[in-house]
Amino acid sequence: MSRTETLSVNAGALPLIETMRARAAELRVAFATGAAGETLIDAGASVQGSLEAGRLMTEICLGGLGEVAIGTSPGLARWPFTLTARTASPVIACLGSQYAGWQLVSEEGEESYFSMGSGPARALAGREALFKDIAYADRSEFAVLVLEAGGPPPEPLVRRIAADCDVAPENLTIVYAPTQSLAGSVQIVGRVVEVALHKAHELKFDLTQIVEGMGTAPLPPPHPDFITAMGRTNDAVIYGGRILLHVNGPASEARRLAENLPSSTASDHGTPFAEIFRQYDGDFYKIDPMLFSPAEVAVVALETGETFRGGEIHAALVDASFG
Amino acid sequence: MSRTETLSVNAGALPLIETMRARAAELRVAFATGAAGETLIDAGASVQGSLEAGRLMTEICLGGLGEVAIGTSPGLARWPFTLTARTASPVIACLGSQYAGWQLVSEEGEESYFSMGSGPARALAGREALFKDIAYADRSEFAVLVLEAGGPPPEPLVRRIAADCDVAPENLTIVYAPTQSLAGSVQIVGRVVEVALHKAHELKFDLTQIVEGMGTAPLPPPHPDFITAMGRTNDAVIYGGRILLHVNGPASEARRLAENLPSSTASDHGTPFAEIFRQYDGDFYKIDPMLFSPAEVAVVALETGETFRGGEIHAALVDASFG
Amino acid sequence: MSRTETLSVNAGALPLIETMRARAAELRVAFATGAAGETLIDAGASVQGSLEAGRLMTEICLGGLGEVAIGTSPGLARWPFTLTARTASPVIACLGSQYAGWQLVSEEGEESYFSMGSGPARALAGREALFKDIAYADRSEFAVLVLEAGGPPPEPLVRRIAADCDVAPENLTIVYAPTQSLAGSVQIVGRVVEVALHKAHELKFDLTQIVEGMGTAPLPPPHPDFITAMGRTNDAVIYGGRILLHVNGPASEARRLAENLPSSTASDHGTPFAEIFRQYDGDFYKIDPMLFSPAEVAVVALETGETFRGGEIHAALVDASFG
Repeated sequence: MSRTETLSVNAGALPLIETMRARAAELRVAFATGAAGETLIDAGASVQGSLEAGRLMTEICLGGLGEVAIGTSPGLARWPFTLTARTASPVIACLGSQYAGWQLVSEEGEESYFSMGSGPARALAGREALFKDIAYADRSEFAVLVLEAGGPPPEPLVRRIAADCDVAPENLTIVYAPTQSLAGSVQIVGRVVEVALHKAHELKFDLTQIVEGMGTAPLPPPHPDFITAMGRTNDAVIYGGRILLHVNGPASEARRLAENLPSSTASDHGTPFAEIFRQYDGDFYKIDPMLFSPAEVAVVALETGETFRGGEIHAALVDASFG
Repeated sequence: MSRTETLSVNAGALPLIETMRARAAELRVAFATGAAGETLIDAGASVQGSLEAGRLMTEICLGGLGEVAIGTSPGLARWPFTLTARTASPVIACLGSQYAGWQLVSEEGEESYFSMGSGPARALAGREALFKDIAYADRSEFAVLVLEAGGPPPEPLVRRIAADCDVAPENLTIVYAPTQSLAGSVQIVGRVVEVALHKAHELKFDLTQIVEGMGTAPLPPPHPDFITAMGRTNDAVIYGGRILLHVNGPASEARRLAENLPSSTASDHGTPFAEIFRQYDGDFYKIDPMLFSPAEVAVVALETGETFRGGEIHAALVDASFG
Repeated sequence: MSRTETLSVNAGALPLIETMRARAAELRVAFATGAAGETLIDAGASVQGSLEAGRLMTEICLGGLGEVAIGTSPGLARWPFTLTARTASPVIACLGSQYAGWQLVSEEGEESYFSMGSGPARALAGREALFKDIAYADRSEFAVLVLEAGGPPPEPLVRRIAADCDVAPENLTIVYAPTQSLAGSVQIVGRVVEVALHKAHELKFDLTQIVEGMGTAPLPPPHPDFITAMGRTNDAVIYGGRILLHVNGPASEARRLAENLPSSTASDHGTPFAEIFRQYDGDFYKIDPMLFSPAEVAVVALETGETFRGGEIHAALVDASFG
């Protein structure tokens, strides 16, 4: 009786790519064809890009399964302009697509390249253990990859990406923007729900129970220095982000999730991210992974109708980070 | 010189039905064909549905004559995620379509069924006295009915509904979701402007004078218990809802409206709705009807440019209700 | 490699005109054909119009290069309903199109007419010195003009406008609404970013450096008196408006901009606009032009990542103005 079509995050991203193309000049993004025939969309590297390009990148990252709005939100008096993201398919949209989990490395020839791939293409390649846990795979002739990067991958890597996705290189689209760019600043903060999903996974919460995800975080001022920019975009979520999840299953699990999900459970909590990063000499893997989540969490247990809460936003830390 | 076409709330709802169909899997809604050939859309009974399905249901309820957004609003620190609805045709959209005023009863055969019909189909059937007062009737070959219900009506009732709307059963679409569902929680709170219009009618305010309606209310956590769910969705509006109306006509009437419209004019005001309901042994008709309206009201008298105000939001009561 | 198509504000406005046409009855706007064959859209003169018509007018004014939303914002507890506008092309959208800088005068025959033309048509006519400074001109067979006016221009003036735009009169569309109307109240407040751009120009800030503009301001209650209505719409921006700009170039210039941009730098600041206007006996040109800008300004210097601030919103003055 009910329709059981599978959601395709790559198909969902295509109309957004077309929107970006139609508005390329307005959004200061540059379309090009790469050496392997792939479509390259520069949203902030050799062009300036825009906040709106970042908003569209975020919706592309969500595979068309979410709505991302730039507007105003209460909570931080000095930072009223915010991004709000929501999705009725948080596991597929955020973990199956948006999460930057696909390690892309190239040391061939003279070019060395490293980036963590995010976006719909991941669900075609399925190279990460995560895909077994969420039991999702996409099928599509077209692949869309998103990169937080200052340039596109070299040709051999592009060909491997296309092969891993089982698409012709001409059917591969790669959107990229560096952390420091306008679009980058938006699309990273646009991960306010995704980081919560990812931490929920780390906390061994049964992801199939998470049915709604919504979150808001302040738009950080972009910074030309990579570490400072990375710090601000992370702090926007860690100290300024608020999320609301609706979950099925036992209320006791929802309570556990709400208590453990906020960034405040991490030992490093309380210091701007860039400082923490420097304290560990730039070694990401020494940072407590529990830090990567929103400041303030509300989890509705649909089983009992209870709302469990954890954490709170920290205006002073956002101010310290955003400068 | 000016175009004088009549607004059709049923025609206005059709594109939204198609949006729901295209996004059925994402929104967890189920399309089916009923025994009489009608299209049935389950948005939260045997499927889980979603908040976005509820948002679309609300726009369907408004006959496509309003915009409903899920986002953030100031006012209630613990409940930043809200629904905002607005319409330039509040009387037709809210009373001619959204109001749940069509009593649908079936005791035929073995099935007994009761539901209050809302949505565009009401304006085709015109079975309520209200339609005389607002002088609106729709003409359309297609009818769209919305039900706050746990299941679709039985076949004989569906045939009667279609006959009352003067459409073939195959041209009738019924969207339904129970009070306890995600979609239900949204579409009921989505009535924040409608309840104000309905109370204005009870207060004998000249409805033809109301030209703009806008309102916002917190998204209540759904609750599995019917009465508690009903309580929360009502409290979201009664204690957490804020509206802004623009009205023509005498400013004195606008002032009277603002003073009398807030829920605080009701004798039962001050207690969560579910408790009130239980105090009256579940007899809806003993509850002061003046309770069903937003907490905080602003009415702009276009005649004089004055803004009249009444009521205020009650964070503590929202907290007590939402748990 | 990158696409370098020129942005056309007139082409960008056309789909919005079609949206207005399709929703004419709902939005209470009237389409007509004028004596010269031009399309006239009355959004609030002989018809009542609507807030949504004003929102669309604002997007038309921005030449389709911006997004305008009506919703809620924090900041002013009594005025939660606001307009938010944003654009990734602030100079072209706001100064090349939205700014009311084209003086339209007719004293021919028996009709005398005066209005300041705004919207995309200005960028075809290019009659203002400003266009040299921003180095923008549009090319289009279709022209769209927006007027804050109680009626359309007389035929000879329409023919001159079309000739100045180098379009056939049948390809000219004129949208108009008076200051006192619902649509007027929205489209004037919708200038919250534009007035900042214009003042930046007056301050000799290098406009080519402004790459992002975003702003929010409360929706003022319309007033039937022209001067009071003008006062309120201006006060919404002057005392209630907040903007965020992202700029390239030296941080020292961004700092200077933030310090000098708020309305508080004007000598007349601190009194509702209508009072100031009366103090100068209705002589606009005696008012300190520095007053016409938002209350609160944040400028991000992309060069250094610093956010510079100036001014603040004044709830008491908004209250005094809005009544």
